[in-house]
Amino acid sequence: MYGKCNHSADSSPSCKRLGFLQKNNSLEERSRIVSSFKERAAKNLLSCDNSGGEARFSRTETDFSNLFARDLLLWKSSPTTSGRPLTDPPRSWTSTTLTSSWRAWRASTWSSRTSPSLWSRSWWTVRTKRPEGAERPRLFTYEIAPVFVLMEQLTLKKMREIVGWPVGEGDGIFSPGGAISNMYSVMIARYKFFPEVKTKGMAAAPRLILFTSEHSHYSIKKASAALGFGTENLILLRTDERGRVIPADLEAKVIEAKQKGYVPMFVNATAGTTVYGAFDPINEIADICEKYNMWLHVDGAWGGGLLMSRKHRHKLNGVERANSVTWNPHKMMGVPLQCSAILVRERGLLQGCNSMSAGYLFQPDKQYDVTYDTGDKAIQCGRHVDIFKFWLMWKAKGTVGFEQHIDKCLDLSAYLYNKIKNREGYQMVFDGEPQHTNVCFWYFPPSLRGLPDGEERRERLHKVAPKIKALMMESGTTMVGYQPQGDKVNFFRMVISNHAATRSDIDFLIEEIERLGNDL
Amino acid sequence: MYGKCNHSADSSPSCKRLGFLQKNNSLEERSRIVSSFKERAAKNLLSCDNSGGEARFSRTETDFSNLFARDLLLWKSSPTTSGRPLTDPPRSWTSTTLTSSWRAWRASTWSSRTSPSLWSRSWWTVRTKRPEGAERPRLFTYEIAPVFVLMEQLTLKKMREIVGWPVGEGDGIFSPGGAISNMYSVMIARYKFFPEVKTKGMAAAPRLILFTSEHSHYSIKKASAALGFGTENLILLRTDERGRVIPADLEAKVIEAKQKGYVPMFVNATAGTTVYGAFDPINEIADICEKYNMWLHVDGAWGGGLLMSRKHRHKLNGVERANSVTWNPHKMMGVPLQCSAILVRERGLLQGCNSMSAGYLFQPDKQYDVTYDTGDKAIQCGRHVDIFKFWLMWKAKGTVGFEQHIDKCLDLSAYLYNKIKNREGYQMVFDGEPQHTNVCFWYFPPSLRGLPDGEERRERLHKVAPKIKALMMESGTTMVGYQPQGDKVNFFRMVISNHAATRSDIDFLIEEIERLGNDL
Repeated sequence: MYGKCNHSADSSPSCKRLGFLQKNNSLEERSRIVSSFKERAAKNLLSCDNSGGEARFSRTETDFSNLFARDLLLWKSSPTTSGRPLTDPPRSWTSTTLTSSWRAWRASTWSSRTSPSLWSRSWWTVRTKRPEGAERPRLFTYEIAPVFVLMEQLTLKKMREIVGWPVGEGDGIFSPGGAISNMYSVMIARYKFFPEVKTKGMAAAPRLILFTSEHSHYSIKKASAALGFGTENLILLRTDERGRVIPADLEAKVIEAKQKGYVPMFVNATAGTTVYGAFDPINEIADICEKYNMWLHVDGAWGGGLLMSRKHRHKLNGVERANSVTWNPHKMMGVPLQCSAILVRERGLLQGCNSMSAGYLFQPDKQYDVTYDTGDKAIQCGRHVDIFKFWLMWKAKGTVGFEQHIDKCLDLSAYLYNKIKNREGYQMVFDGEPQHTNVCFWYFPPSLRGLPDGEERRERLHKVAPKIKALMMESGTTMVGYQPQGDKVNFFRMVISNHAATRSDIDFLIEEIERLGNDL
Repeated sequence: MYGKCNHSADSSPSCKRLGFLQKNNSLEERSRIVSSFKERAAKNLLSCDNSGGEARFSRTETDFSNLFARDLLLWKSSPTTSGRPLTDPPRSWTSTTLTSSWRAWRASTWSSRTSPSLWSRSWWTVRTKRPEGAERPRLFTYEIAPVFVLMEQLTLKKMREIVGWPVGEGDGIFSPGGAISNMYSVMIARYKFFPEVKTKGMAAAPRLILFTSEHSHYSIKKASAALGFGTENLILLRTDERGRVIPADLEAKVIEAKQKGYVPMFVNATAGTTVYGAFDPINEIADICEKYNMWLHVDGAWGGGLLMSRKHRHKLNGVERANSVTWNPHKMMGVPLQCSAILVRERGLLQGCNSMSAGYLFQPDKQYDVTYDTGDKAIQCGRHVDIFKFWLMWKAKGTVGFEQHIDKCLDLSAYLYNKIKNREGYQMVFDGEPQHTNVCFWYFPPSLRGLPDGEERRERLHKVAPKIKALMMESGTTMVGYQPQGDKVNFFRMVISNHAATRSDIDFLIEEIERLGNDL
């Protein structure tokens, strides 16, 4: 933004393109930018058409393996390379705005061919070269962080394509975690059906009912409390033995709510529950949502990553019918926290729901296309730049890299499951191979194995997992979580999201449980 | 947590202390931990007693200049140093939990005497040594991030001491930005007065009214929409010429709302408005809040940093009377975004308002004191670790360093103000020296200077700032924001938060405005 195009190592024609999307760009210029993106369209990259019953992979419009950072933001075409040298930042005393733009720009000049470690080092260099001011990028308006705004748009579009929405249409934003993304979904649904609540409050709406599984993440409940619905108006749905919502229970409860004169408005289907890793049957839930005109949200915070895997994405079949989707790359995909996206199928709702059009922030008379100012879509003001690490990782690993990561983790959990399902002293919490990497099991120390099933055994078993975990923490070798669930006493829940783990690590876990638990 | 105390470079007695706060610690052990913190109590560090009219600085309970990271988390005392070597992490295949704990622990062994740059390098080393899994610390439960949880508690307490609450009593949490912190304040206030809204929704409460200045940040309005109050129930208060709330207007509007049968519940006083940098008169607003039993929130997202300055903190006089305070170290104090704290005077409200006690997350039968599990206070689930950079910076700069930072920025803005207030072609938007670093002014190009005051001049002036800003961005030299406000046409708002700026930078800004604006 503050210099001319100056790629000494790369004089490709892309360098001549105008990427600074200005309001006064001619239609020709705009279409040139777009088509030059399309020129690079997918050659090898996988996308997935999820509209049929079986997932089909096809080319995607946005090819991340060939799209370079510099494609995002370029100068007006210039035949010279006499621009500002890369090592010379502009005067940066106004701190945030200037330097982050400059930094963003400079980031856009890196070669995409460098190895992951080189990327990291470059980033570090950029960060440390300007200790004052350079540490504060934020997502808010295009002028503050042009590259990051565009990265976010491209990446969200790519995610929507993977969800299965036609040509990645829709909207979305990165939020500070899955709980906030889920909160967005409830807000947007309310705005869709009762937009007057924004100005008049909940008093303007009838009694609104939300539905979610009894196994779902507590953030849906937090949202119902925070947003003024009240937790009593969040109806919990029964699940089958594997922790999946029973669609008939949803329909029965919808009818019951309607009979009471309430308005069923929102259904959350979980793709990857926290404890069991269960995937609710989205298609059947979607049928009911369509029938009763309810918003369908899919909480894929934990399970959304499986969309990257040709082998496992069928577990989210129907996700393309959702009105909104939470997907946390910071969970299953290994992106450092925080990195969560809320994806919305209908454009304009996020903006309509949250915009306040503060004149001091969003001036319509800026010299660029202010539709790129994403700040007013958020309930936040300036947002932490969560996109960059994700984008970098995608560049470095590729879609296929994420797929391998995910398949590896699921393989490992299958290994653990197969290892313990018939092993002496173990009992699985639910039958069959886990849908996600959550392996839930009890360990019975030898002293409990002879006991008859009954209250005493239950009571003693309830104390085993906490005790073993405490011993693990004291000996400092490993740690695995536990919890009760419903009427089930404390059980271990082993979750794998690190694809650097190995089978010998799994073996070690089992050894440790037995070493520490043997004498309990 | 996963080894014995092993400070080869430091064999101070602190090394013998037990810092892992376990449920079965004896009272003696607990009091030993606490008193060993107190042993290091403030010798040089400044705190401030704000309860009188004038700020008085005194010693603080928590001395950050002498409190080392290792004080936060130590092992059971051991005469040996035969623990796990620092370079040997525990088996980390369970990724997140293990490695972040290990990392936290390892972080706790750094010397506090190293220079800031060395700190950064150490941090970088820690980050890169374990590319898999080590990147994902998160704040949630004590076992996941023990050091960070304790850092957060200590730092929040310190901030509350600086606000002026007796011995730093109260509660608080770091949130993803000032808008979310402000949203928390409204939620907590509602929970305080109408706890049944949590379960029954807004239908259980009468019509609740919120008040904030017409100059306040738009996040209060966003919160009123999101939480189900409705923006129409947020009443905007008139301000004086300097942008400060007129207390009489608040009282009049409170009375009006009561006469209509509504319930005035919440008042936001802004400490440092976004555009003018104005500080609302907190004491007078607090009087009205006490009289009418309303929650007083102080939005010090932007101005809270001035609490660190003996010279400027009087602008927040009365802040200790607030029920809650938003304070963003990522703004005036130069901490990288995101780092925002919501401080609450009454303990228990945050927990009461937000807790859902999900059994799978917060097991009461853990082997440590689960009151350190802060996750259920938040509307988020796992939180980004925002505390560490702030804590590091505080360690590196000290309270006095922050004070110097802030005083320098305010000096620079005074320099700018004095330079342009009588300069030809400039007009200040409000009279008198700005309260914060916001300097708001119009620049009149020579072609406008002869025009009589009137619609034509206004219309032309309205276009000047956007045009100059566009030219700045095109020439890449600097950038300064503008906006209209009320009936005032576009004016520049120069804000300084980078204390590395110099007077010559200010001079340069003026030169640039005149160079680019001269021929408009």
